[in-house]
Amino acid sequence: MQQPASTPSDVTLAAASALARLRDKGPRVHCITNAVAQNFTANVLLSLGCVPSMTLSTEEIGGFVAGAQALLVNLGTFDAERRQATELAVKAAADNKIPWVLDPVFVDRSRPRADFARALLGRGPSALRLNRAELSALAEGDASPEAFARASRTVVGLSGATDVIADSARLAHVANGHPLMSRVTAMGCAASALTAACLAVEPDAFRAVAGALVIIGVAGELAGEKAAGPGSFAVAIIDALYNLDAATLTARARVT
Amino acid sequence: MQQPASTPSDVTLAAASALARLRDKGPRVHCITNAVAQNFTANVLLSLGCVPSMTLSTEEIGGFVAGAQALLVNLGTFDAERRQATELAVKAAADNKIPWVLDPVFVDRSRPRADFARALLGRGPSALRLNRAELSALAEGDASPEAFARASRTVVGLSGATDVIADSARLAHVANGHPLMSRVTAMGCAASALTAACLAVEPDAFRAVAGALVIIGVAGELAGEKAAGPGSFAVAIIDALYNLDAATLTARARVT
Amino acid sequence: MQQPASTPSDVTLAAASALARLRDKGPRVHCITNAVAQNFTANVLLSLGCVPSMTLSTEEIGGFVAGAQALLVNLGTFDAERRQATELAVKAAADNKIPWVLDPVFVDRSRPRADFARALLGRGPSALRLNRAELSALAEGDASPEAFARASRTVVGLSGATDVIADSARLAHVANGHPLMSRVTAMGCAASALTAACLAVEPDAFRAVAGALVIIGVAGELAGEKAAGPGSFAVAIIDALYNLDAATLTARARVT
Repeated sequence: MQQPASTPSDVTLAAASALARLRDKGPRVHCITNAVAQNFTANVLLSLGCVPSMTLSTEEIGGFVAGAQALLVNLGTFDAERRQATELAVKAAADNKIPWVLDPVFVDRSRPRADFARALLGRGPSALRLNRAELSALAEGDASPEAFARASRTVVGLSGATDVIADSARLAHVANGHPLMSRVTAMGCAASALTAACLAVEPDAFRAVAGALVIIGVAGELAGEKAAGPGSFAVAIIDALYNLDAATLTARARVT
Repeated sequence: MQQPASTPSDVTLAAASALARLRDKGPRVHCITNAVAQNFTANVLLSLGCVPSMTLSTEEIGGFVAGAQALLVNLGTFDAERRQATELAVKAAADNKIPWVLDPVFVDRSRPRADFARALLGRGPSALRLNRAELSALAEGDASPEAFARASRTVVGLSGATDVIADSARLAHVANGHPLMSRVTAMGCAASALTAACLAVEPDAFRAVAGALVIIGVAGELAGEKAAGPGSFAVAIIDALYNLDAATLTARARVT
Repeated sequence: MQQPASTPSDVTLAAASALARLRDKGPRVHCITNAVAQNFTANVLLSLGCVPSMTLSTEEIGGFVAGAQALLVNLGTFDAERRQATELAVKAAADNKIPWVLDPVFVDRSRPRADFARALLGRGPSALRLNRAELSALAEGDASPEAFARASRTVVGLSGATDVIADSARLAHVANGHPLMSRVTAMGCAASALTAACLAVEPDAFRAVAGALVIIGVAGELAGEKAAGPGSFAVAIIDALYNLDAATLTARARVT
């Protein structure tokens, strides 16, 4: 086994360590994402001290990615121009050894998207962040995250009531989060962007993905304690990320 | 007369019934809308349990509409690609008997938009949701909502200090709402998206439009009681929609 | 000297005067801006009673600009279509003597953007609103705002811990603002949109730029006193702009 086995305390430590390094280093994260998600995603990244950029222009995306420390590829919109921007961005990431996350939004609703997502999986993303319906669509059937991680040679971060993080050798479950997270648009997209940010500061992709999902899950719980509904929840989770400290994160993390 | 005459209590009942069915069924609503409005619109729909999708890609919009229970066509942006997406979406709606709403944003500011909106009206939308300036531009003069509804063979939902809902035989006035609604961008667009959602669960389009405008109007009043300005109002109306119950809706509805 | 020398009380008066006229006249402001910024920018303008429009369609942008009282050109996204829309919008502004603001977002991250921004500077914007890194990129070295304003024959509004406003003859410093302003996406874009709005009601561009930066800076301070983090700050600054009165503005302005 190349990687040490993961223990719950490893994952909690990874989350606390990633949180501190995000604030210390303020990594640049380039995000290919849809217009629904752009504003919220940028604010999630800024709340932790990261520097988001979002241009999709084929004339400059390569330069933006080359100057960033991580890349998010979210398929929330899917057209010829976006695909071309993605091609250039993924190439720039590979050329510059920049980690990247694939978020195959709504591949369960569109066959051309699912085909495009499978092609991108072959380009070696550092991590895949998705929900159960999207995983089933990509796997063309009921695949476990562990099996899909092994087959795809990536780290899978599967969001749900309990998140599952798997690579070829390790498995972790994160039981943090709040039901209102599914009532705010772009919450999953923002979790993927945070995953990309963690990959910028944590070379072990399994630890980065698990750490990101602990951070967003704990922030969601803190927001849920203050929110009166999904509107105030979306505001409160940004505040919670900004104010989150290592002690709270460690005390709240529910990793198994 | 094919439809029964509408009474105020009919409209209030329609609103309460639509609210319950939205939460029970969680309809998929595909939205063609502009980037200004996408995030807020998605959050309004999610607050009530609906599932929004927003892709504009010509390669997949037909499939998204075919898999949805309602369609919103908002003209907030107007370009060749968007027009082509609209064409495909309206065709998919017709082919699959999916109700759709036309929101002719800013047709009073742009002649090409007004021409395009008139062409779309000929395609048989289930409802038209707009403001007074937009109605005047479409009608090329002072038309009453009733006259325009008859001429266009659709249901008109005219937003204003008092909303007017009209089809060829029925007329209702809804006096709910709050002045801050005009100080938050995309509030009208979100009302149109909610109208589409109500059409997904209520086959009588007049009742669906009137119900949607009662729901958003009452939520606006509740939000206005908590808000310190348009920023907190935009947050509070999402919370209010999420928390709205049938008793409050019925007690607050001001329908004549 | 064509313009009178600026004094701190002149600038404070300009801010209070612009604030009153924005609410009185409700100018139309057309904004070319990126999808990340569109919603927040529209809400900032609406909070002060302005009427934003945001279409980028080449078929109608000329008409929208001709019917507006000010134009914002924000380079947050940069592609062939956006460049063409910008060309048409700037021409319509020149033809109709409509003031416009250039916001050269991220020109420090992309050479093609910087080249495009320099070409636009030659088209005579009423004002340039940017940060230090962007100014250095445009000036290709360390230029003072005063020197750059003289060389470019425009008014420079340089945002920072202390804002600097300069034209060929006048200089003002505005020490208002709050650290959380840099943690909310599109805050600079919104400041530029507000600058455009002030140009619609104040013919002296120096006074308009300085007034806009005082208004947004004071609103930021008020928001900072209520916010628990960048999420609630973004909400509170919209409320603060809506509620801002001349007495508070004048008492809080820190102009030197």
